[in-house]
Amino acid sequence: MARGEIVVVNPNSNAVVTAGFDAALAPLRFADGPAIRCVTLEDGPYGVETQEHVEQVAIPLRRLVERETRAGAFVIACYSDPGLHVCREGTKAPVFGICESALLMALARGDRFGVIAIGEGTMARHQRYVRQMGLMERFSGERPLNMSVAESAAGDNTLARMIEVGGELVKLDRCDVIVMGCAGMARHRQGLEAALGVPVIDPVQAAVTMAIGAVRVAA
Amino acid sequence: MARGEIVVVNPNSNAVVTAGFDAALAPLRFADGPAIRCVTLEDGPYGVETQEHVEQVAIPLRRLVERETRAGAFVIACYSDPGLHVCREGTKAPVFGICESALLMALARGDRFGVIAIGEGTMARHQRYVRQMGLMERFSGERPLNMSVAESAAGDNTLARMIEVGGELVKLDRCDVIVMGCAGMARHRQGLEAALGVPVIDPVQAAVTMAIGAVRVAA
Amino acid sequence: MARGEIVVVNPNSNAVVTAGFDAALAPLRFADGPAIRCVTLEDGPYGVETQEHVEQVAIPLRRLVERETRAGAFVIACYSDPGLHVCREGTKAPVFGICESALLMALARGDRFGVIAIGEGTMARHQRYVRQMGLMERFSGERPLNMSVAESAAGDNTLARMIEVGGELVKLDRCDVIVMGCAGMARHRQGLEAALGVPVIDPVQAAVTMAIGAVRVAA
Amino acid sequence: MARGEIVVVNPNSNAVVTAGFDAALAPLRFADGPAIRCVTLEDGPYGVETQEHVEQVAIPLRRLVERETRAGAFVIACYSDPGLHVCREGTKAPVFGICESALLMALARGDRFGVIAIGEGTMARHQRYVRQMGLMERFSGERPLNMSVAESAAGDNTLARMIEVGGELVKLDRCDVIVMGCAGMARHRQGLEAALGVPVIDPVQAAVTMAIGAVRVAA
Amino acid sequence: MARGEIVVVNPNSNAVVTAGFDAALAPLRFADGPAIRCVTLEDGPYGVETQEHVEQVAIPLRRLVERETRAGAFVIACYSDPGLHVCREGTKAPVFGICESALLMALARGDRFGVIAIGEGTMARHQRYVRQMGLMERFSGERPLNMSVAESAAGDNTLARMIEVGGELVKLDRCDVIVMGCAGMARHRQGLEAALGVPVIDPVQAAVTMAIGAVRVAA
Amino acid sequence: MARGEIVVVNPNSNAVVTAGFDAALAPLRFADGPAIRCVTLEDGPYGVETQEHVEQVAIPLRRLVERETRAGAFVIACYSDPGLHVCREGTKAPVFGICESALLMALARGDRFGVIAIGEGTMARHQRYVRQMGLMERFSGERPLNMSVAESAAGDNTLARMIEVGGELVKLDRCDVIVMGCAGMARHRQGLEAALGVPVIDPVQAAVTMAIGAVRVAA
Repeated sequence: MARGEIVVVNPNSNAVVTAGFDAALAPLRFADGPAIRCVTLEDGPYGVETQEHVEQVAIPLRRLVERETRAGAFVIACYSDPGLHVCREGTKAPVFGICESALLMALARGDRFGVIAIGEGTMARHQRYVRQMGLMERFSGERPLNMSVAESAAGDNTLARMIEVGGELVKLDRCDVIVMGCAGMARHRQGLEAALGVPVIDPVQAAVTMAIGAVRVAA
Repeated sequence: MARGEIVVVNPNSNAVVTAGFDAALAPLRFADGPAIRCVTLEDGPYGVETQEHVEQVAIPLRRLVERETRAGAFVIACYSDPGLHVCREGTKAPVFGICESALLMALARGDRFGVIAIGEGTMARHQRYVRQMGLMERFSGERPLNMSVAESAAGDNTLARMIEVGGELVKLDRCDVIVMGCAGMARHRQGLEAALGVPVIDPVQAAVTMAIGAVRVAA
Repeated sequence: MARGEIVVVNPNSNAVVTAGFDAALAPLRFADGPAIRCVTLEDGPYGVETQEHVEQVAIPLRRLVERETRAGAFVIACYSDPGLHVCREGTKAPVFGICESALLMALARGDRFGVIAIGEGTMARHQRYVRQMGLMERFSGERPLNMSVAESAAGDNTLARMIEVGGELVKLDRCDVIVMGCAGMARHRQGLEAALGVPVIDPVQAAVTMAIGAVRVAA
Repeated sequence: MARGEIVVVNPNSNAVVTAGFDAALAPLRFADGPAIRCVTLEDGPYGVETQEHVEQVAIPLRRLVERETRAGAFVIACYSDPGLHVCREGTKAPVFGICESALLMALARGDRFGVIAIGEGTMARHQRYVRQMGLMERFSGERPLNMSVAESAAGDNTLARMIEVGGELVKLDRCDVIVMGCAGMARHRQGLEAALGVPVIDPVQAAVTMAIGAVRVAA
Repeated sequence: MARGEIVVVNPNSNAVVTAGFDAALAPLRFADGPAIRCVTLEDGPYGVETQEHVEQVAIPLRRLVERETRAGAFVIACYSDPGLHVCREGTKAPVFGICESALLMALARGDRFGVIAIGEGTMARHQRYVRQMGLMERFSGERPLNMSVAESAAGDNTLARMIEVGGELVKLDRCDVIVMGCAGMARHRQGLEAALGVPVIDPVQAAVTMAIGAVRVAA
Repeated sequence: MARGEIVVVNPNSNAVVTAGFDAALAPLRFADGPAIRCVTLEDGPYGVETQEHVEQVAIPLRRLVERETRAGAFVIACYSDPGLHVCREGTKAPVFGICESALLMALARGDRFGVIAIGEGTMARHQRYVRQMGLMERFSGERPLNMSVAESAAGDNTLARMIEVGGELVKLDRCDVIVMGCAGMARHRQGLEAALGVPVIDPVQAAVTMAIGAVRVAA
């Protein structure tokens, strides 16, 4: 029975990204635990980079949430948390945004968090969101990889670049926990953590962890 | 093998409290998930009510953490989060405080959280802690049951009193998520949530949820 | 020539609301000043009350902004400031949200602002927005009329109810400037101000004022 | 009839500064709009640079405000907003400070503002004022030209220096809107905006814009 | 020798107030400690109640400070801290404001402070000042006696009214330390503290205490 | 008679540190003032550097406070303010922490404070504490000497290093008052202040100053 299933939605239409975080969720799948089903939003853009991308997926996400009447919880797997509040309005199931979840999880692992962004273009939006969450006193800073989503997904030197940027966040901005500001970086989490010596949070894993708790406790 | 086991420590010596949250953690135990072992601190006071109680358990908690060299994560199961930072200093495993975890989990479920305290005596300490966490902009208020720990554990009218106090937090302080400010209230969580119509967070369940994620993702 | 024209968009499809604020903008129309053209969003809901309403008008607003290539400035005339950031991304002309503008204008007229909302349902969204703007230290509170948009537009006792609620904001929440939290209340501004003895800000007038400055200074 | 006239007071006795912003207000003068009359405070110092200058003009400004019984609004045209609150106490007409108005207007044009100061000496006062306004979460930083008021008024390389300092505010401090921290810089506004690619706010224009709205709406 | 003397200035011309706090400083006079000389500002108003009063004493205070070239420290003994920054600019000796000092001293005695004001008229100014100091997270509230300065000085029921208002600050606003928001209330400090059961700070005593430390340590 | 005596406790067992601040308190000893008695905690570690050191002295400090039933006030002379709240719970006498007192005293001497730490290891704890105090808006930054307590006590080049680090706090972090983040630096206070040109606060002197005021006023 699907009661309690966690539906993780990739708001972009890039199924490679979906497959990536689907794999990264393996450690959170238990024999008798909640099913975790990763889906790709049919109508999504190829990547969510602009504010227009963010806005255009909000209502499609709401429709998806409304259709999934048996879900135990939802995770919106894009670091801009598109449609988070409109989805919450459309279901009694808890809805988790991966950015919100990652920042909260980070605060249980360090005193001040730093964020690795893919590109500069999203940083103003992210900062506005940190302020909306009321977390500015714990925010060290955000620094961009300055890679496209495609590059960061494909490139062999992505980890090297993440270590460089993460190192600046730790040394210059004095954070003691790192959040990866993208849904598609999970395979670099352990390497980055080992290199930097501070906890590194993957946002999809963070949100699914919270969803597991919510689903099981409510059962 | 105990690798990855989550050790949940009750810093007070009241084994009834330990047994209570042990039972409340059943939904978070999975056939192939991390073991969750609840232990009672030998040297703890019967209840952690005063600042003296908080301080006197810090070093014993550190010693316990140092002894448990195979633990995957620790949870300190007292709402004052005694010894949280000193325990973190003593192990490479993540250490979760139930108050910290509950407040963070609450922020993924509502915009402003309210806290139900057992008694008035702990509220100044809790408020200092909310400020230390940098979360004052999301804090609606805290209201006491004005019951002893013993009363709240035993009494039949505990739920009725929690509904009364929680209702004031929702209506007067305008919170939209409630945190139960004690390790021993889990059995009232569902009743309270049903009565109030807003999410109710049990802090031990919140911390263990986070610990599961940390342990599994690091594996 | 339309160069420098200010386009004021009502994101809901209720032309009575558009006509209402069009009339209220008369004092801001000058013989040799910027034209002020009020338009109704074709695809908008009858009223913007829910988060779904807010989200569904964002992309239509963006399209409208993209079509109006000769506008000197835009005003989004709904107190939820729907689509504000996505519209800014789509044009070089400045875009003003009426909520943002009203709160800022209020801060030049008093030390702490209070907000009169139509109904309770929008208040959590408004509060999130005040926090996103970083203005919580100047925010006294928000209180609802608990009328429908229709009632507040039609009813003869709307002003009386606004005076009652505004009086609570002044006396109980200790604000010294009031913001009317809706695009359609302008005709009550003067009566309310006279009754309460503190400045009262109409958000559409506030935003159009700012737009006039931006358009003229940039010319 | 002078009813509704906006009186813009230069608190220093340097009539060249007054003439400068008088000219910069041309775009805000409308055939049938409020008259805008710029006056120089008789008793003012030659420039307002020190805290002593700020304090010594407060009471003379109050006297001026009391004499101008027919004014519709006042603008105090010095970036330290001298006498703002004492002038407000002395009239029923709204009184706008150019610093306060500029910061508020900036918040409608960008997420985080940076300020260009003439010299270092005023920066501690300005920062105290940003904190008094409760706007620290939106404040990127302030950087000085390190020119005297006289130099900045006369020098040909003033714009070049402003572009240099403004560029540091944008690139190093990551602001996305610039406030010119002096009443006498308006003629560089457009050049600076063109060079930096972010909105640039002239404080006298900002305050007069707000005054126009207040005067007209109240009429 | 007057080297190191502390000059305590009453900015109003009411010598009874000066005599009152002069007497209240007896416990802070030591045989071999700094001399403490209380003076009345010749040009001051009879009481400092309005913003105009505050502004008009700023320059006279500066002149006094400039004349007292041998002072070791200054205390401005009016709860509005008039002229504090302009006096600091005019001397190398430290200058203490009694409001600033009282709030800081209060933060060493409790977690959240409440303020007893003489009348409502000063409360907006005080709140602006708390925000300027960056102390809003520790501020419980301020409540007025609603007595004139004269009444509060003369009346026999002043203490009773202070206990009533202070009790509201403790019980309703949940402060755990009280600041008396006036230079002339010292004789009620002990009675109020005894009645309320929380520390009560007299602002003149607080500032002179800090001045003693500054003078002696610098010697 | 010892009534009103101030007991200053060094929580570490290094009597050289105790002797150092005992000497530095000479200017605060008056013929007819409160006695100031400096004691070394018997059970303390040789230096308080780690969180474990902080926690392990809390209960011993409480016991000491309980034994000293005739003390008028206590000062805990370690910059981590160990046991501050548990000591306050154990006595009716006021208890001052030197870090808390120093930060508060600094706020009466400058707008933004910077802190000189001995080593990097304590900085995260200090920052958490600044946040707990609600003082982040006044905090410029903290920079480490990167010396051991022993080195800083013994070394001849300690002052030179403090001037270097303090200069960075003033020039790069833009503080205008410096707090020395250790109980054993008092002999460098004057040299540092002379070199930097901003006030420098010794935390033990700050706390004892506040204690003198509290003791005398209560008498």
